[in-house]
Amino acid sequence: MLKEAIYHRAGNNYAYAYDEKTLHIRLRTKKGDADKVSLIYGDPYDWTKDGWQTSSSPMTLSGTDEWFDYYLIEIQPPFRRLRYGFEITSGDETVVYTEKGFYDEAPFDDTAYYFCFPFLNAIDVFRAPSWVKDTVWYQIFPERFANGDLSNDPEGAVPWGSEEPKKDNFFGGDFQGVIDHIDHLVKLGVSGIYFTPIFKAKSNHKYDTIDYMEIDPQFGDKETFKKLVKVCHENGIKVMLDAVFNHSGYYFEPFQDVLKNEEKSRYKNWFHLREYPIVIEPRPNYDTFAFEKTMPKLNTENPEVREYLLKVARYWIEEFDIDGWRLDVANEVDHSFWREFRTAVKTAKSEAYILGEIWHDSMNWLQGDQFDAVMNYPFTNAALEFVAKNTIDAKVFAEKITAVMHMYPENVNEAAFNLLGSHDTKRVLNFCDGNKDKMKLLFLLMLTFKGTPCIYYGDEIGMTGEIDPGCRKCMEWDEEKQDLDLFNHIQTLLSLRKEHKVLANEGKLSFISAKGKTLLYEKSSYDESILILLNAGDAAVEKSFIIPEGYELLFGNDASEVIPPYGFSMYRKK
Amino acid sequence: MLKEAIYHRAGNNYAYAYDEKTLHIRLRTKKGDADKVSLIYGDPYDWTKDGWQTSSSPMTLSGTDEWFDYYLIEIQPPFRRLRYGFEITSGDETVVYTEKGFYDEAPFDDTAYYFCFPFLNAIDVFRAPSWVKDTVWYQIFPERFANGDLSNDPEGAVPWGSEEPKKDNFFGGDFQGVIDHIDHLVKLGVSGIYFTPIFKAKSNHKYDTIDYMEIDPQFGDKETFKKLVKVCHENGIKVMLDAVFNHSGYYFEPFQDVLKNEEKSRYKNWFHLREYPIVIEPRPNYDTFAFEKTMPKLNTENPEVREYLLKVARYWIEEFDIDGWRLDVANEVDHSFWREFRTAVKTAKSEAYILGEIWHDSMNWLQGDQFDAVMNYPFTNAALEFVAKNTIDAKVFAEKITAVMHMYPENVNEAAFNLLGSHDTKRVLNFCDGNKDKMKLLFLLMLTFKGTPCIYYGDEIGMTGEIDPGCRKCMEWDEEKQDLDLFNHIQTLLSLRKEHKVLANEGKLSFISAKGKTLLYEKSSYDESILILLNAGDAAVEKSFIIPEGYELLFGNDASEVIPPYGFSMYRKK
Repeated sequence: MLKEAIYHRAGNNYAYAYDEKTLHIRLRTKKGDADKVSLIYGDPYDWTKDGWQTSSSPMTLSGTDEWFDYYLIEIQPPFRRLRYGFEITSGDETVVYTEKGFYDEAPFDDTAYYFCFPFLNAIDVFRAPSWVKDTVWYQIFPERFANGDLSNDPEGAVPWGSEEPKKDNFFGGDFQGVIDHIDHLVKLGVSGIYFTPIFKAKSNHKYDTIDYMEIDPQFGDKETFKKLVKVCHENGIKVMLDAVFNHSGYYFEPFQDVLKNEEKSRYKNWFHLREYPIVIEPRPNYDTFAFEKTMPKLNTENPEVREYLLKVARYWIEEFDIDGWRLDVANEVDHSFWREFRTAVKTAKSEAYILGEIWHDSMNWLQGDQFDAVMNYPFTNAALEFVAKNTIDAKVFAEKITAVMHMYPENVNEAAFNLLGSHDTKRVLNFCDGNKDKMKLLFLLMLTFKGTPCIYYGDEIGMTGEIDPGCRKCMEWDEEKQDLDLFNHIQTLLSLRKEHKVLANEGKLSFISAKGKTLLYEKSSYDESILILLNAGDAAVEKSFIIPEGYELLFGNDASEVIPPYGFSMYRKK
Repeated sequence: MLKEAIYHRAGNNYAYAYDEKTLHIRLRTKKGDADKVSLIYGDPYDWTKDGWQTSSSPMTLSGTDEWFDYYLIEIQPPFRRLRYGFEITSGDETVVYTEKGFYDEAPFDDTAYYFCFPFLNAIDVFRAPSWVKDTVWYQIFPERFANGDLSNDPEGAVPWGSEEPKKDNFFGGDFQGVIDHIDHLVKLGVSGIYFTPIFKAKSNHKYDTIDYMEIDPQFGDKETFKKLVKVCHENGIKVMLDAVFNHSGYYFEPFQDVLKNEEKSRYKNWFHLREYPIVIEPRPNYDTFAFEKTMPKLNTENPEVREYLLKVARYWIEEFDIDGWRLDVANEVDHSFWREFRTAVKTAKSEAYILGEIWHDSMNWLQGDQFDAVMNYPFTNAALEFVAKNTIDAKVFAEKITAVMHMYPENVNEAAFNLLGSHDTKRVLNFCDGNKDKMKLLFLLMLTFKGTPCIYYGDEIGMTGEIDPGCRKCMEWDEEKQDLDLFNHIQTLLSLRKEHKVLANEGKLSFISAKGKTLLYEKSSYDESILILLNAGDAAVEKSFIIPEGYELLFGNDASEVIPPYGFSMYRKK
C-alpha cells in the first residue's frame, strides 16, 4: 500500500456537510491500490470499543483520476457529531488511517486519534439558492445582443452588424433589444440571463464603471431596466448582473477627485495609491486590475468603500428585483469584503445567487461564507481539449473531470457555473474550427453535466469569433443566417434536461468506459438511468456498444451497429 | 520520483500571507525523494516566457516528518499577486508541478496552468495580537488557587486543602486570593492569566453558567474583579476569561423558562429542543454538551442568542478591560457565530486575544476570520510521549512536532497556545510518575518552543493529581511543601526566554539531531543562535556532543563529556 498517496483532511472537499443532516467523507488513495476502504466511526461522547467496532461502513469508489482513487461515504450522525478513521485493505495489508497517522489496528484508548467533524451546524452548510440547480443561463453582452431603441444609441454608433467588432466601436445594443427578443430565449429554453455590466461606463464592455448607481444611457433608463426584469420574470427567466467591485473605471468620480486633488482628496483611501503625485504612464503608480490604468483597484478594506459597494449590491436587488450578482475578478478582492457582501445580499434577497469569476482552484471561496459558485473554466478546458482541440482522449477527459469534481464538495459541484465560452474567450465554434458536429457534442456534454450551464449569446445559432473583440459580434437576427439545426439540437437538449431531472443535478454522474475518443457515462438516480455515449473522433466506431437490457434510445444515433464520427446517443431506462 | 506524494494546494498551510507583504509557499514531497525544489513564479499580468524563466528561486527544506519532506520559500511579490509552480529534481528526473498536474517542462502558453495567489489583501492576513507572541500564560482554576476572603465562601465550603478535591466540594478560592498572591506570579515571571469560568454557576468548575453577566458570588463581586484586572495590568499581566458559549448551565434562566413553559416558552429557540415534552433522563431529548443534561447546547444560529452572547463578549472587555477570551468547546459552535464574535471582540478591543479550545486539527478556525490560536494538544501529547511516558524516541518526537508545525502557517504557530496539562488532564508530574527531572525537561521543551506557553497553576511547585477532579487540588501555599528547585528551574527558563527573544517566537526552530532519547535543536535568528540539547533517557550519554565553535554554555549541564540521564544543556552563540 502506498501510504504517501493516502490523503484526508477534515474540511473542504474531504469532509463536509452535504445538507443539514448529512456528512460526506472522502478518502484519496493511490490509483488501483486499495481493495476495500471502510469508515470506522462513532459519536465522540458515546465511545466504547464495542460501539466503534460495530460502526464500520464500506466506502464507495466515487472516481479515479490520473493518479488517485477517491472513496466516498454519506453518513447521518444521530447527534450531528462524528469522530472517524479509515480502514484500508490492499492485498494482505490492512491499515487504519487516523488524524495521528497509520496504525495496524484501530486505537481505542482515546477519541483524539480520530478525525473530527465536531458538529453539523446548519448555518455553516454550503447552500446555493435552490432554483440555481435547475437553471440554464444565457450570457448577454448588452452592446451586441440587439438594438431595440435607436434613440439611445451612443455617439458614433454604426449600423447593426455593419462592421467587425473592435475594441472601441459601438452598435447600440440595449435593453429594449432584449425585451424585443425575449421569445428567442423562451424558445431556446433558458431560464436565466447573465448580463455583463450595464452600469454607466465609458467602454463598450462597461467594465470601467463611472457610476454604479446608474444604468448606462446607451442601454436605456431605470424604467426600461425595471421593465426588462419584469418581462424576464414573467417568462420564467432570472436576471444576474455583473458586479465590477475589484476596480472602478478611470472616470469614476472618486478617482477623478483623487487625480485632481492628489493627497488632499477625501477619496485618497478609496484606492491603493502608492505615492504622489499620481503617475499614469507608462505604468500607473496605483494598484489596478492587471496594469490597466483605466481600472484603478478599489480599496475594499476601507469601511467607506465597503458601505458604498454594499449599498450598490442591495440597491439593484431591492429596487429592481434582480436575482443574482456575478463578481468580476472576484479572487483579487478580500475575503472579508465578500463575507459582508454575502450577508448584505442574502439579507436583501435570501434566494439571490452569488457567482464569482475565478479561473483557478476556488475552494477558499466556496465554503458557505462567500460564493454560491464560480465559473467552471476547468470544465471548459477539459471539454475543449477532448472534443474541439482533440489534444486528449476520452480517458484523460474523464480523469480531468473526475479530478475537478473531487476538488469540491458535491453540493458545490451541483451549483457550478459551466460554460464553453464567454466574452473573454474565443467562441466555441472557432475552437471547433467550424465543425458543428463537434460543437453539438460539446453542448451535449455541458447540458448533461452536473452544475448549471451557460450559453454565450449567439453560440446557439453558430456564431463565430476569435478572442475579444472577435467574440463580441452583433447577434445575428436574420434567420437565414442562423444555424437552425444547431439551435434545434441545443433546444432539444434543454428540453430533455427539463423533462429528465436526472440529466441535470438530480443525477449522479459516473464514467463507465473511455476508449480512444469514445466516452460512455451515466446519469442516474434511484429510479432513472440515462446512458450517454459519444464519439469525439473523426472515425466511425463499429459494434462496440451493446445496448443494456431495458434501455431505449432517447436522443441521437442508434449505436447498436455503428457510432458515426462525432456521433452520440442517449439511452434511457426507467 | 514519487508523484503521488507531492502535494500543494493554494491556501491554508501551503500558501498564505505571512504578513502584509510576504507570502509563504510550501511544498510536500516524499521523504528523501527530492534533490532540489525551486519555485517558478511571476506576476499574472506581466507574464512572458523570459520573465518566468528568470524568476525561479530555490526552496529550503523546512522539516521532515515520518513520511514527507516539506519545502518553504518566502516571497514578496511586488504587485501582491502571484502565479507559481514547482520544479522538482530527483536524481535524473525533473518535473514541473502545476495546478493542472505534472509537466516535463514549464508550460508557458497560459498562466492558468499555475497555482494562484490572486492578491495579498492585508485585511485577510492572519494576525494574532502582537503582545501574544511574548506572553507566558498561567492557568488559574479560581476555586482552587487561593482563598483570600472567607466571607464569600460558598455554603458547605471546607477549609483550604483539608480534603481531596471532589466533583462537588468547595474550598472557597476567590479573586482576593489571586490579588493576595500576585507576587508569586510576578516572581515566576508569567505575563498572562487564563481563568477558567468566573461567571455565576452551580458547580465548582463553573462551566454550567447561570448568568453570563454576573460574577459568581463565591469569587467576589464586580468591584473585586475590576480590582483584580487592575492589579494584573499593573504587574504586566494580561487577563483572559473563559467563554462557555457552546452551552449554558441547567439553571440559566432561559433554560429554566423552557423547562417550565415547554413549547410556549419565548426561549424555545434558544436551544436545540428535539421534541416536547422535554425529557431529561436517562438521556436528554435536547442537544447538550456531550450527553450532559446540565449543559444544554445554545442555538447560536438564533439572532437573539447571538446578540446576547456578543453583548456578553463586549461587556467584559468594555467594562472590565479584559484582554482575551478562551472559547470552551469552540469547534462545536458554528463558524458563522465565531466570525461575528471576532468582529465584535476586535471592535471592542483591537488587541484582544481569541483562543479556541480545539483538540483536533484546527485549520478551519485559523484562517484569520475566527481565532487567533487554539490549545496545542498535539504538542502536549508528543512532549508527554517523548519525555514522560517514554513511548517514543527523539526522532519520532521531532517528526511529530514537524508534522504539527507544517499543518499550520508559521504565523499561526507563533501564537499557538502550548500546554503540558490543564484542568482537563492529569497533572504533568503524574504523567512523569513523580520524576521531576523529566518534568524539568518538559518545561525546557515548552519554554523554548514556538508559540505561547501556559503553566497550569501549581505545576511550578510540583503539585500532583490525576485527571479531574484530582488535578484540581488546592494550591499549596506552604513554602515548605513547595518544590522550590522546580520553581527556580521554570523561573530561570522564563527569564532566559525574556532575555533571549530567539528562545520565544523570534527564533526559527530546527531539529539538528535525534538519536535514541537524545535530541538537539536550534532556535536561531539572524544574529543569535541557541542550541538546546536534552537527554530524555535514563542512561547517561557520553562524549556524543562536540560543542561547536563560538558557543558557550547558557544553562544546564556542560555536555562536552557526558550528558547525564534527563540532563540538558543550552549553548549560545551571538
